[in-house]
Amino acid sequence: MTKVLTINAGSSTLKWKLYEMPAQQLVGKGAIDRIAMPDSVVSVTTASGKSYQKTVDQLNYQQGAQVVVEKMKQYQMITQLDEITVVGHRVVFGGEIFKHSVVVDAQVLKQIKNLSELAPLHNPVEAQCIEQFKKIIPNAVEVAVFDTSLYLDMPEVAYIYSLPYQFYKKYGARKYGAHGTSHRYVSRRAAEILKVPLKDQRMITLHLGSGCSMTAFDHGKVVDTSMGFTPQAGLTMSTRAGDVDASLVAYLMDKTGIKNVDQFNEILNEKSGLLGLSGISPDLRKILEARKKNQRAQLAIDVFINRIIRYIGSYVVEMGGLDTLVFTAGVGENSVPIRQLICDKLTNFGVKLDPQKNKVVGQEAIINRPDSAVHIMVVPTNEELMIAKDAYRLSA
Amino acid sequence: MTKVLTINAGSSTLKWKLYEMPAQQLVGKGAIDRIAMPDSVVSVTTASGKSYQKTVDQLNYQQGAQVVVEKMKQYQMITQLDEITVVGHRVVFGGEIFKHSVVVDAQVLKQIKNLSELAPLHNPVEAQCIEQFKKIIPNAVEVAVFDTSLYLDMPEVAYIYSLPYQFYKKYGARKYGAHGTSHRYVSRRAAEILKVPLKDQRMITLHLGSGCSMTAFDHGKVVDTSMGFTPQAGLTMSTRAGDVDASLVAYLMDKTGIKNVDQFNEILNEKSGLLGLSGISPDLRKILEARKKNQRAQLAIDVFINRIIRYIGSYVVEMGGLDTLVFTAGVGENSVPIRQLICDKLTNFGVKLDPQKNKVVGQEAIINRPDSAVHIMVVPTNEELMIAKDAYRLSA
Repeated sequence: MTKVLTINAGSSTLKWKLYEMPAQQLVGKGAIDRIAMPDSVVSVTTASGKSYQKTVDQLNYQQGAQVVVEKMKQYQMITQLDEITVVGHRVVFGGEIFKHSVVVDAQVLKQIKNLSELAPLHNPVEAQCIEQFKKIIPNAVEVAVFDTSLYLDMPEVAYIYSLPYQFYKKYGARKYGAHGTSHRYVSRRAAEILKVPLKDQRMITLHLGSGCSMTAFDHGKVVDTSMGFTPQAGLTMSTRAGDVDASLVAYLMDKTGIKNVDQFNEILNEKSGLLGLSGISPDLRKILEARKKNQRAQLAIDVFINRIIRYIGSYVVEMGGLDTLVFTAGVGENSVPIRQLICDKLTNFGVKLDPQKNKVVGQEAIINRPDSAVHIMVVPTNEELMIAKDAYRLSA
Repeated sequence: MTKVLTINAGSSTLKWKLYEMPAQQLVGKGAIDRIAMPDSVVSVTTASGKSYQKTVDQLNYQQGAQVVVEKMKQYQMITQLDEITVVGHRVVFGGEIFKHSVVVDAQVLKQIKNLSELAPLHNPVEAQCIEQFKKIIPNAVEVAVFDTSLYLDMPEVAYIYSLPYQFYKKYGARKYGAHGTSHRYVSRRAAEILKVPLKDQRMITLHLGSGCSMTAFDHGKVVDTSMGFTPQAGLTMSTRAGDVDASLVAYLMDKTGIKNVDQFNEILNEKSGLLGLSGISPDLRKILEARKKNQRAQLAIDVFINRIIRYIGSYVVEMGGLDTLVFTAGVGENSVPIRQLICDKLTNFGVKLDPQKNKVVGQEAIINRPDSAVHIMVVPTNEELMIAKDAYRLSA
């Protein structure tokens, strides 16, 4: 038995979980929200489910790492630091370099930093966390788990854009995908539950949270995914636009008076999607509530569903069929009506949802009717467990 | 019997055809290439198929219109101008105003000019031609036939982008589609040949020329099309990129040092697509020839096919099935291997191509096997005949 710490550092949060491995037992977890901002918020939840929260003075990532270690001790999740033999770090962007999770050495750390240009809000702070935890827990191994690794398996036809080819060769302009750790976890877990190996089926995993993406696994091989060069592309999301005509950028910059393309990208990322369409909220629950009385709320939902089913249609053709459809993440795990609306549009592929079984919320379940040609499943995502498993395996 | 003249004025050409209506009999046709450039080229083809060509001093659109009239007289297609009772003009962009073809009055002419911002290379010269032919043939009625009219029938869920909604309301940022006159002609002609009314089937029309687009007709109603706000979006084309992550614009401008978004749009329109991917040519025939020895030629073809089948998959889901698939335009009418490659990927939908029947080139044909669940057809497009029919109907 050993303990594995997972670290998920984002642009304004540092989330952690502590597992006992190989038992996959959660020992405790916590987060520091508003990190590197005034009034950081430290929260901890013990294995028994008790939660504690405290607002403190602004913490930077170095101090945050120190606080994580103190809290694990304070709540008796560990007695000595030596119990932790490996720390698994989520790294958002691994470019075309990292096809798999790896043990971090000086070279890997440098590469993660060098890739910061394409993930400026993530890779630098993730590299900082790797360095800091190496200092605080010197006997532990650091493992990096990349969101993008899964998609280096895609065929070129799926990841290349129809642009001058040197834009790919010289500047790395290609589809990288995102949410890879989630899709990897969910696809493998769904196969386990079904007792059908991933290599023996055609599966679509549908990660619907505030970010939304879809991945097609053709007999275990990733053949396509909806996010693109950036996580702005693909499906309609809470505040992200998904696919739009690239020629709109020039036209709308001219019309709105926005001078800077980066500022326009902020609109594509933060003011668009369900929020932009509905004008109400980025939260699908609020939009669902409003839709009977509000045309634009209804439109937002219609567009959300339309883009999802269009992508599913594309992937069914690319794979020549579909055996399993898996819902995950906040909306996918919890929204009974959204799952229903999606499946209602897929009857042509033999998809038959069982409305009773579909009432499940936030739990693993098979929700199709027995005569459905396609398995329909809910599998709550667990990126941290995926990271812990990779970290444990690589440190063994 | 009466004669109808059709005018298709583009940014560097003025093409015309003369029909006897209602017989739909072609009396003659011609073109002025390199119009408004040094060394304009005037060509004429008579009903018997004889062609004449001559390079002349630079002609502007006014002079070009005069030359059209002279040539019709010179080659005895008309004896008096009065024989022409209506002139049908192709107009590229009708915005959200023109849901149908219309007789042009002062108000319509003004609106066509006002819409020039979104079709700067087309609408102004088309308006010029309308004015000029009105002067030269004062007794004839002018009719405008819009490429975009067909798509005003689309549901909002298909034409809206997931952007802030005011970008649509204030600036008209929506999917307008293109090639509408071609898709309209081909869909109606295919239904005629099949003797199955358009309203009784789900049809996809595939216009594959140097520009490529696809339209889905669900029981006669247009439910989606692949071109977007501009004709740059959608499928991979000869030199146009089709769909790309809009966030790539900022990144690639920075990398390539292109300072101006409009310049970047030129790359998306003129240096991308099959040309950008293959590095060989925008011409699919040349790429097909090269593909066995050239990896990037093969990649270009793979991407071309991949984007087409992905869109077909999307539209099959949107319509809940597919009854008829129609190929048209240069590639669609003539490329046996491209039709084969597309249909090979659609067997999951019951598409069964007959390889013998598929040998047809440039002719109307039904090319599926008898046991195919989907009619597969070749229908040569004829935008001019569609324009002539609209013009004749509206002038009657």
